[in-house]
Amino acid sequence: MKIFAYGIRKDEEPSLKKWEQANPSVEVGFTEYTLTADSARLAEGSDGVVTLQTSPYTREALEVLKSLGIHYISIRNVGVDNFEFKDLNDLGFTLTNVPVYSPNAIAEHTVLLMGRLLRRVPEFDDKFDHGDFTWAPTIGKEYREQTVGVIGTGHIGRVVIKILQGFGCKVVAYDVYHNDDIEQQGLYVDSLEELYKQADIVTLHVPLFDSNKYMINDKAISQMKDGVYIINCARGELIDTDALIKGLDSGKVAGAGLDVLDDENSVFGKVWSSPDNIPNEKIRNLAHRLNVIITPHSAFYTETAIHNMITTSFDSNKALIEGLKPNNIVDTTK
Amino acid sequence: MKIFAYGIRKDEEPSLKKWEQANPSVEVGFTEYTLTADSARLAEGSDGVVTLQTSPYTREALEVLKSLGIHYISIRNVGVDNFEFKDLNDLGFTLTNVPVYSPNAIAEHTVLLMGRLLRRVPEFDDKFDHGDFTWAPTIGKEYREQTVGVIGTGHIGRVVIKILQGFGCKVVAYDVYHNDDIEQQGLYVDSLEELYKQADIVTLHVPLFDSNKYMINDKAISQMKDGVYIINCARGELIDTDALIKGLDSGKVAGAGLDVLDDENSVFGKVWSSPDNIPNEKIRNLAHRLNVIITPHSAFYTETAIHNMITTSFDSNKALIEGLKPNNIVDTTK
Ligand SMILES: NC(=O)c1ccc[n+]([C@@H]2O[C@H](COP(=O)([O-])OP(=O)(O)OC[C@H]3O[C@@H](n4cnc5c(N)ncnc54)[C@H](O)[C@@H]3O)[C@@H](O)[C@H]2O)c1
Ligand SMILES: NC(=O)c1ccc[n+]([C@@H]2O[C@H](COP(=O)([O-])OP(=O)(O)OC[C@H]3O[C@@H](n4cnc5c(N)ncnc54)[C@H](O)[C@@H]3O)[C@@H](O)[C@H]2O)c1
Repeated sequence: MKIFAYGIRKDEEPSLKKWEQANPSVEVGFTEYTLTADSARLAEGSDGVVTLQTSPYTREALEVLKSLGIHYISIRNVGVDNFEFKDLNDLGFTLTNVPVYSPNAIAEHTVLLMGRLLRRVPEFDDKFDHGDFTWAPTIGKEYREQTVGVIGTGHIGRVVIKILQGFGCKVVAYDVYHNDDIEQQGLYVDSLEELYKQADIVTLHVPLFDSNKYMINDKAISQMKDGVYIINCARGELIDTDALIKGLDSGKVAGAGLDVLDDENSVFGKVWSSPDNIPNEKIRNLAHRLNVIITPHSAFYTETAIHNMITTSFDSNKALIEGLKPNNIVDTTK
Repeated sequence: MKIFAYGIRKDEEPSLKKWEQANPSVEVGFTEYTLTADSARLAEGSDGVVTLQTSPYTREALEVLKSLGIHYISIRNVGVDNFEFKDLNDLGFTLTNVPVYSPNAIAEHTVLLMGRLLRRVPEFDDKFDHGDFTWAPTIGKEYREQTVGVIGTGHIGRVVIKILQGFGCKVVAYDVYHNDDIEQQGLYVDSLEELYKQADIVTLHVPLFDSNKYMINDKAISQMKDGVYIINCARGELIDTDALIKGLDSGKVAGAGLDVLDDENSVFGKVWSSPDNIPNEKIRNLAHRLNVIITPHSAFYTETAIHNMITTSFDSNKALIEGLKPNNIVDTTK
């Protein structure tokens, strides 16, 4: 059996090596190139492919794979947006994804962003760069004094809650679906309005739908406490950046920690030599503020997450080749 | 009754106001000046003084206070090193301190330093400053995968343990005195050597004695895991900076988070216009590393801590004036 993998980065190679060693019956080939009509030929002789990319998978690339007798594709991430399901169905492909690779990676990053804002780390860093080793007047706040509003109590939100409770925070939560454990702890409030009223920090852990695009808008921010902190490690389009900037300008919002941003693809994944050159005026505006922390959609990026992405995708591809039906097969009929 | 306070900073004024309002029977005066023979006269008409400073309290200053009929001094911090006990005894002063103002302030800062190292925040910040919005290859580690060795399970160490457990870390602890709760949880190891052997992160929460000066030296570091992280939010002299630098150079030590440093008084509390101008070669060396985070003895510096320092010191001074014996009277006979 042979599996060929696309878009393999240096940091994935140790996990790839480990998987190979644990699966001596499988021959593994890989390339750093993404899957295109050209690179597809590299998979010749393989029974399945593992892949990860931020650009669309073309019908041409899939046709080449099919001509090589390949029917199984396993992506190393969650999102299947880069596939046209029609192409997959027409050409007879079965697709698997990795629905959960490490909620902790994102949850820990989320809580770290909160702490960096509460302790005014960007201001201390700025002082440090100017050789200023005084602490006053850069006074911090403690986690344990905060009420944190967690929107979305799925895989990630629940880990966020657990970590915050270790700090002694008060947690209030909102979700359209109530998780049993969080319900039993009595953490749910009935409406977002109630959550905004109580929370010193608001953190987002819901998927993006048409219905919640820009859910954090002028109105939502006006319902929040004065001096609120807003954290977004979910999806950029959940926040109306104009409303956030207005809130920061007025002081209504004390700070923001943003791993995702509306229109982030115009900026993230690239090098602009200085934050002054960011080609999106709103993101540039945010990037210059000492009470805003922007991370380049890196919340997920831990050794554990990468290990799980590699292991699960290869395990799934192998299972498909063996004729099994892993429970992470993507339903491409919808 | 009147209490006069020295060295009051802007960030202390809100808590001072609150205390005044809660104690209408007490007249409160204050100055930003520290307590010297000159400024001592400002306390005329007062029954006690509240003070905080990093320079020694001179016998002359105390003599002036005595001549004004003042016998009660309440410091807003823990450390009484700036007093000559002989002077206090000769002149008949009673002294109180604030033994515990907020273990959480220091514990939270400690855990935040760990996370900033694990997620390589200084490297991400450096990329950000160069307009680099890529995440690879700056891969992070997760708290939950770490074994943390906590040396000292007093007020601060125990809060550190509680927070780390919320993250899902494994904790091993060492203390000459065993705390019941930590003992029941089975977290103690029998020797520092055993702790060094197991810990991915070593964090210090013990007081400084002659016996443990430079306890983190070449030998201790050689007993630690390759790629260990070292955190010090206790006292600078616990670490031999030369040994730490050697460990960082060889890669044995993957990173360090330091709120305190040997000879920090030559650097902290001052402005050097750039880290290049730090007048201590070893601290300058550390300051230039992207895997070392230095904070200027600011771990304690939170609104909660300042509030508690003000409230406890004024409460104690008032109690002394009323002839009571608060349990934080410093034994100046030792
Ligand atoms: N920054 C990153 O690197 C990164 C990585 C992975 C996932 N994410 C994002 O994190 C988010 C959460 O991921 P997860 O794994 O916890 O998902 P999940 O599916 O386990 O949980 C999502 C939760 O949101 C709830 N929900 C859905 N719509 C809601 C609404 N309108 N209001 C309130 N609650 C609602 C659901 O009931 C569910 O409990 C997703 O948007 C995902 O895209 C970000
Ligand atoms: N960075 C800051 O801003 C800041 C602020 C406050 C305190 N501190 C420092 O933090 C440290 C701990 O403070 P705390 O309030 O938890 O103190 P604590 O007295 O409550 O606890 C200290 C613990 O250390 C143990 N201990 C003493 N000597 C030891 C040794 N040689 N080996 C192992 N354990 C030993 C004691 O048994 C005790 O359990 C102190 O050094 C203090 O100076 C730093």
